[in-house]
This record gives sequence, structure tokens and C-alpha cells, in this order.
Amino acid sequence: MGWGDLGVFGQPSKETPNLDSMAAQGMLFPNFYTANPLCSPSRASLLTGRLPVRNGFYTTNAHARNAYTPQEIVGGISKDEILLPQVLKKKGYVSKIIGKWHLGHSAHHLPLEHGFDEWFGAPNCHFGPYNSSDRPNVPVYNNSQMVGRYTHTHPEGLDFIFHQNMAQRPFFLYWAADATHAPVYASKRFLGKSQRGRYGDAVMELDYSVGQMLAWLRALGIDKDTFVFFTSDNGAAVMSGPKQSGSNGPFLCGKETTFEGGMREPAIAWWPGHIPAGTVSQQLGTVMDLFSTSLSVAGLSVPDDRLIDGLDLSPVLHNNTLINRPIFYYRGNEMMAVRVGPYKAHYWTWSNSWEEFNQGINFCPGQEVAGVTTHTQQEHTMQPLIFHLGWDPGEKYPISVVTKEYQDALSRITAVVEKHKKGLVPGVPQLNMCDMAVMNWAPPGCEKLGKCLKAPKSQPWKCDWPH
Amino acid sequence: MGWGDLGVFGQPSKETPNLDSMAAQGMLFPNFYTANPLCSPSRASLLTGRLPVRNGFYTTNAHARNAYTPQEIVGGISKDEILLPQVLKKKGYVSKIIGKWHLGHSAHHLPLEHGFDEWFGAPNCHFGPYNSSDRPNVPVYNNSQMVGRYTHTHPEGLDFIFHQNMAQRPFFLYWAADATHAPVYASKRFLGKSQRGRYGDAVMELDYSVGQMLAWLRALGIDKDTFVFFTSDNGAAVMSGPKQSGSNGPFLCGKETTFEGGMREPAIAWWPGHIPAGTVSQQLGTVMDLFSTSLSVAGLSVPDDRLIDGLDLSPVLHNNTLINRPIFYYRGNEMMAVRVGPYKAHYWTWSNSWEEFNQGINFCPGQEVAGVTTHTQQEHTMQPLIFHLGWDPGEKYPISVVTKEYQDALSRITAVVEKHKKGLVPGVPQLNMCDMAVMNWAPPGCEKLGKCLKAPKSQPWKCDWPH
Repeated sequence: MGWGDLGVFGQPSKETPNLDSMAAQGMLFPNFYTANPLCSPSRASLLTGRLPVRNGFYTTNAHARNAYTPQEIVGGISKDEILLPQVLKKKGYVSKIIGKWHLGHSAHHLPLEHGFDEWFGAPNCHFGPYNSSDRPNVPVYNNSQMVGRYTHTHPEGLDFIFHQNMAQRPFFLYWAADATHAPVYASKRFLGKSQRGRYGDAVMELDYSVGQMLAWLRALGIDKDTFVFFTSDNGAAVMSGPKQSGSNGPFLCGKETTFEGGMREPAIAWWPGHIPAGTVSQQLGTVMDLFSTSLSVAGLSVPDDRLIDGLDLSPVLHNNTLINRPIFYYRGNEMMAVRVGPYKAHYWTWSNSWEEFNQGINFCPGQEVAGVTTHTQQEHTMQPLIFHLGWDPGEKYPISVVTKEYQDALSRITAVVEKHKKGLVPGVPQLNMCDMAVMNWAPPGCEKLGKCLKAPKSQPWKCDWPH
Repeated sequence: MGWGDLGVFGQPSKETPNLDSMAAQGMLFPNFYTANPLCSPSRASLLTGRLPVRNGFYTTNAHARNAYTPQEIVGGISKDEILLPQVLKKKGYVSKIIGKWHLGHSAHHLPLEHGFDEWFGAPNCHFGPYNSSDRPNVPVYNNSQMVGRYTHTHPEGLDFIFHQNMAQRPFFLYWAADATHAPVYASKRFLGKSQRGRYGDAVMELDYSVGQMLAWLRALGIDKDTFVFFTSDNGAAVMSGPKQSGSNGPFLCGKETTFEGGMREPAIAWWPGHIPAGTVSQQLGTVMDLFSTSLSVAGLSVPDDRLIDGLDLSPVLHNNTLINRPIFYYRGNEMMAVRVGPYKAHYWTWSNSWEEFNQGINFCPGQEVAGVTTHTQQEHTMQPLIFHLGWDPGEKYPISVVTKEYQDALSRITAVVEKHKKGLVPGVPQLNMCDMAVMNWAPPGCEKLGKCLKAPKSQPWKCDWPH
């Protein structure tokens, strides 16, 4: 989903009444970022509070490459990482994930091995249906057992909340909806209802679901005891074409890139009686802050044996204060850009390769900024391109290097980057190796369903990440 | 000002609390258009309820050229046109214009000659200051007399409202703020206050002024008796560079073009107790509707001796109904495009000439859609480019001509265009002739101020409109 997909963020069709209401009742974050311009690393960061380069969700197979967890990936979330539900358990929280996991699909990578108590959903994206001979259809799990292949997630969230509330147990629900990823899906009730084709239908359904969830909290009388946050894992996948992807509003490019369109996300915090209604926070936030903030809300501390990138946003939520902090934009093993205050410095620019671009794969359709949306990996480390995101949110006008503004911004940013690089101990990269044998041929539970498939012989290779 | 310059329309800095509140208390129109992608013709259309090609605010000097009223223009609003305040007078309305007139600056073109009772403001844009030898500075008028040259408009609106209210007289205030036109100006109180540089400061000041105006109506207890509408005369002038222009949100290009960025406008209707609060209308609206709607609100009919393009939006305002109607996108004497429902067909595409473009004048900076943002005047009349503005608001993906969707849309649109062209009797073009002698050398009142300048000899020529 893109920054511009919500009415409250300027979608012209204004078809997200529930999310817009959520913002009117809560706090809107127009400067909120994911940790990576694509799915798996973002989700790993959300749950660990750490940048992908620290938690291992990146590749070193080639420079500055986006990597994720397709079915042929060998790796997944490391057992050395501490995930949010693992810490929450100290205070008796029950945790459930509904939807897409995307942190590895081998048995030891699955959610119940990493702190979640319950799961309903799938380990990977479904790009299928597949014929299940050269590639299996993605399984759907109920907890640790598959219950089928390639179906869609069910409205299990309300049920989970209801049961935890009945049992008076604190809970963490990680609702990782498959929507609005391509291939875009919407239920019958929403099909053809939006002005935006099937993508808009999916957005409407997602919006409806959020509305149901908030209404449910109110109906149960626990709205004032429940912190809810809505965001996305990457910008709209504008390369998927107009009918399979959304809008990044006024921002440049989209998913897979470290321009604003790839990493700035819609974000709304909601907690009646705690977060003042109808407020806008100018705080620079990231999905990693949800790790630290959730723990703070639960009265817990973040792990003290490792570097945590997430901030505790509690003071922001309660008093709309501003905390000075940078945003780092990584692509694989490379820090492509950094934001400090309103200034963003690009140390590397790349949309995608000429080779891909000439095949019609375009991460910036209809947009082209000379020297910025480059099709070669362009190094600017000696003299970064600096933009002022206040008057130039679209990253179209690099500030002239001969100005005082440039020099002042650069010296502020340089200090931040030096500190960051000094403290950086990269994690072991988990997304380097691929193998057809590791795909979802025979997930636990397949026997009962008669859905086990025969895996091919193991032939691992270094995954090829083209962009 | 651009569609994307308001928080409620997705400006990331969210610096328009008063306009956002106005929307929360009124009705938002995300599909509202001006009548032309630049100043003078739009304003002529607003006040006459008629397209520029009917009311004469266009040129035939060259094909599809934008024309306006610089100081050297000979023409202006024709005496044959009926302006909004002239009709309102039938019901005793007192009308005032504050700010920029822009419908001609010769004596017989000025506001008090066309129905307004009062005026405080200037007849043209000030691009100056000038040295007053080859080009005079633009005068500021108080009613029919100049009171100075090249100052800025004063907060006269509150005063006007107060006096009409005291006298119990119905009033029409046309508040045509100079902001946010380049060169961008903001008062000391707002300078440096926005995140967007001086342009953002100007937006904040404009927003503040609107807030003051609405608060004033409430304080006087006449808010439930006053219909207020906020909109702009063209999209953000993105060619003026990042610090002198605003945002058109997700739309293509800007001012001077007939892409959505040039003609889709922020629009909010406010009338407590009459217009339901917090509503969004999907109605396709235009500034010309403000003519018809204002008359309807005042209990008056539109003139019946001529074709009026404006619609009475009263049913939309009161009941959020939808009225089927097309939008025409003209550039000078050419109908470039038409919108019917979600479909927009381009019969001609042009951003600006290669000559201008190569000089660095860019109406679509950072944007380029092959075959759409063309630098030659490209004719598509035999097979228009058709976009679906719901799933493709950015006009990036022309619908394939071999699809049923294209054929269906085209046949609907063709019927609308044929009807339009059949009923079209172009007005006499008023913006063809220029003459240095007609500039503001000696406006009425200049003698008292000692500010009369000597006009050169009359040497009229056919104005050159480059784009």
C-alpha cells in the first residue's frame, strides 16, 4: 500500500472512511517510514526493532540488492533475533499473527517458533496458483499445521480479540493482511465497488476490516486499553501497473526504491483516551518504533544486549513532542540515503537496471528526474544529492552544492552517518541462498490433507536478486 | 494553488488547519475543476458561468494558446457578458472584490463597470517591481480610484462583511487573494513558519485568513446565512520551481496544461446548517457552477438569453446527489480534452513547445509520459487517448484502443462532444491585441497621488502567446 492510498493522505477517490475516521480519532504520521522498500525485511524490522542490515534480512550476493523470502529461499529469521511477542510474553501477552508471515517458511522459521502463540495465514506471498509440480502452491497454516493451500485469510481477528478479552489476558494481534499485494484480491461484497478497479476494491475491504476491528474493541469496552497502529511495509508497487497497485501521492517512484515513494508509509495511531484525537505528528517514525513503543506501552524494556533502532514513541503519542532522529534508507547491504530533519541525502541512487528497464519493468512510471532516478547504481558518497523534503517532497530539485544550505545540511548529516556507520555491526545475511528443495512441498499437516508433494533433490545456489 | 496544497488533499506538511477544518465542517470536492489552466480565463468563467470560448477570454492568434491579461493587453471582459454581481443586484446584494481582478485594466473593463460596488485590489498580477519607464508598476485601486502602486492587498474582507451585516444587506464577497502566485509573498508573521519555504508560508497565511473569515461569520452570527466556497483558478505553477510553486498531488503536470494537474482544484463548500458537515462529494464540478449555484442560493435564475455552462449544485450541497455532466478542458480556442464520468479523452496533447522546453521552461518537471506530455501539439481527434481517472488519476496509462472499455467510453464521450460542438457559438476573442500604450500609465486617481506616467504612442500588435 502506498502513502497516497488513504483518503486522509490525499487519495482523490476518498474511499477509506474507516481509516480516515481512525485518523480523526487518533494521530496521523505523515513522516512515517518503513525500514526497507520491500516486504520481508520490513516485517523483520517491525518485529525485531532493528534494521535489516542488523537482523540479517538482507543479501550480500550483489551490491544494494533487494532480497525477500520467495519459496526457494533457504534462510529466514535468525533464532538469535528477539521478536516482539517473545518479549511481550514476559508480561503474559498472548500473541497471534493473522496473514502473511514472510520471515522464512522452513519449520524453524515459522511464527510459533519465534514467540507467536497462534497463527492463521501463509508463510509467503501467493503469486500462484501454481501447478504444484515445479512450484508448490503456498500453504495456509492454522498455528503449526497447514490447513490447505492457496486460500485466503479469514476474519479471525475479531475472534482472537474476543477470546483473549473473555479470558482477561493481554494480547498482541499482528494483523498482516495479504491485501493489497498483487495479484489483487477483493471479496464479492467489495468487487467493483471502488472507483479504482480491483486495487481500490481491496483497499476498501482493508478499510472496512479496520473499521470492524475498531468497532469490535469499542463494543467489548476495551478501546481505551488497546493501542492500535496502522501502517504498510513498503510503498505502492507502481511497477505492477495501474490496476494492481496504488498511489504514493506526491512522492517519487515506489516499492523497491529508496525514494520517498518506496519507503514513506501511511501511518495512524489510535488509542482513545490516551492519544489525543485529530492530531498530526511531524515526528519522523519507522516501523521499528512499533517494537519499542509496544514494549513501552506494555511496561517492558527493549532488549539491552543489542542495538535497537526503534524509538519509544510514547511521548509523541501522549504529548505530541518531537524527538530528533534520523531515517536510514537501505537497499540490501547499502545505505542508499539518510534523512535528518527535512533534509535527505542520497549517497547512492538507483531505480533499476537498464536491462530490466528495457524489458518494461519500471519502478518510477511516468516519473523521471535526471541524475536521480538513475538506471545505473550511481555513487554520490563524496558529494551526496541533498533534497529538502519540505519544499520538495517529490525529490526533484537537488540543492546546489555551492550553497550554504547544502554545506550546513551536509555537515549535520555527515555527523549522523559517521555515528551510524561506527556503531554498525552487520548481522549474518540470511537471504543469500536459494534451493528448490526448500519450497513448501510438504508442510506439517500435509499428510492429513493428502496435500504432500515430493521435493526435488537439494541443489542450493546463490540467489539472484536482480534489483 | 494546486489540488495537493491542502492538508485535507494530502499535502505531507499538513499546514492548513483552517481549510482542513472548513472541510470537516462542510463538503469536500475532490473532482472540482477550473475552466481553464490559467488565471484570467478562469476568473472570467467564474463570474460569467461560461467557458472562456463563449465569454471571449481566449485568443485566436495561434492554435491552442493560453492567453491572459498582462499590462499590454488591449481587451478585457466584454460589456455583453453578464457577471455574477450584476444578477445578484436584482435582489439587493452588495458586491465587493478584494484582490486581483484580471479581467482587463482599461477603464471600461474594471470591476465597478461590471457589477461590483466596491473593490480593493489590483487589475493585474504584479511581476514587478518595474522601473515605471518601459513598464508601469501595477496600481492598487480602492473602488474606482488608484490609491498607490504595487502594494499588497489589505485585510478588508472582515470590514466589508461587518458593514453589510450592520446594514442588514445581503452581500457577495469575491475574495481573490493574490497568494499564492509567484513572486510568492508572506507577511512577517508567517515568514519562515512553514516546512515548505516561502510558498508554504503563503499557503499558511491564506489558510489563516480563511479561518479568520469563517470565525468572523460565526462571531457575527451569520454563518448559517452565508454560503462560502474555497477554490483556486488553476493548478500549481510547477514550472515556477520548487520554492515559488505548490503541489498538484498525484496529478500530471500543472498550470498552463490541460492535464489534471493544470485544472483539478482544491474545493470546499461551507454553509453550517445547510451543507452536511464532513461530507465528500464525488460530483464533477467547475468554477462556473459557482455562478449558477450562487444565484440559486440567492433565489435568482441564471440569464436565459445565453448558454450557461455552470450547473446549480444546490442538490449536491444539500443532499449529496450526483448530477451527470461533462468537464471540458480548453486551451485557447481548442477543446483539448473532455471528461465524462471517470473517463477523460485527450483530443489534443501538448505540454509546451520544444523551443520553450529546451530553454528550461518545464510544465511537467520530473514527469514524463511518452505520447502524453508531448512537446508538439499532437492531434488525437480520430482516436483520442482515453484514461480512467479512477484507477489512473496520474494519466499515465492510456486505455488500449482495441478494448471494449475504450470503445464504450469513446461512444459515450463522442455523443457528449458532438452535442457540445453543435451548441458552441464562440464568443469574440478578447485577448488577441496588445499595445504598450494601454498599460497602467495613468489610472484614474493618479493625478492626486502624483503617480501619472506618460504613455507611449499606440502601436497595437497581435499578442504573441507562446504556450
